[in-house]
Amino acid sequence: QELFVDSLKDIYYAEKSIVKALPKMQKAATSEQLVTAFEQHLVVTKGQVERLEQVFESIGEKVGSKKCEAIEGLIKEAESIIEDTDEGTSTRDVGLILGAQKVEHYEIASYGGLRQLAVTLGYTAAAELLQQTLDEEKQTDLLLTDIAENNINYQAAGEEE
Amino acid sequence: QELFVDSLKDIYYAEKSIVKALPKMQKAATSEQLVTAFEQHLVVTKGQVERLEQVFESIGEKVGSKKCEAIEGLIKEAESIIEDTDEGTSTRDVGLILGAQKVEHYEIASYGGLRQLAVTLGYTAAAELLQQTLDEEKQTDLLLTDIAENNINYQAAGEEE
Repeated sequence: QELFVDSLKDIYYAEKSIVKALPKMQKAATSEQLVTAFEQHLVVTKGQVERLEQVFESIGEKVGSKKCEAIEGLIKEAESIIEDTDEGTSTRDVGLILGAQKVEHYEIASYGGLRQLAVTLGYTAAAELLQQTLDEEKQTDLLLTDIAENNINYQAAGEEE
Repeated sequence: QELFVDSLKDIYYAEKSIVKALPKMQKAATSEQLVTAFEQHLVVTKGQVERLEQVFESIGEKVGSKKCEAIEGLIKEAESIIEDTDEGTSTRDVGLILGAQKVEHYEIASYGGLRQLAVTLGYTAAAELLQQTLDEEKQTDLLLTDIAENNINYQAAGEEE
């Protein structure tokens, strides 16, 4: 149970960090689809923060956050992609997608584990809330792959012409 | 192309860090299935390091590594799970699986992105090698989920009796 609460605090910190980082990524992106994806994902992420607060409430725990080294590293990596690439290039967009997908996968692994723990501990309401977010993260990952495959590459091919 | 080589160096650094971290995780695990999974994954990871060297070779680049903040954070997180839990408990095993799955998902996102970049750049041989590793990482993730669901939880239920 302590592991569950600790992991909740970890992902709560992570989601709040992502809320702060997304506007930077959106500003750095070029492809319209990618800009829109980041924009929408910010709205979804804010909803996930609220959903986490409901999870804390559902198990009678106070909302809390705990510094998460992993997400700090992932966000630093995404920021260094912005520094290392030029504005307006498909290379930067592809890099941003790579960085964002690493963050998504961090969340998929976290929520998958949390949902499993919630089931084990008999926290039915929490498990359902966590499943909703897990589904959203998986959808975002698929959307990013789709943008990388169908939108950015098309642009990259266009630049070569 | 620079993004591709940089990302290759990043995951090369990550794989080497994982090779160093796995024996600690194996030593900390209790469930036989989990100990075996870490043991086997070490062998597989060493193979993936060699496969990455082949990828560098296939595109005529020298093998190199680049410090990866994200994997450092992920490994630190896994180590703090060991510190925060008691030896011989299913809680520690579940925590180790959570930590390992975050690492797996980092790799899944990395190799997925790298394979996509390789396809875009026309590096057919590299794309095939990266796909092989991607498949292995996905399999490992499924195996860990299976252990968490069928092995560790069973033990946790047993402890409560």
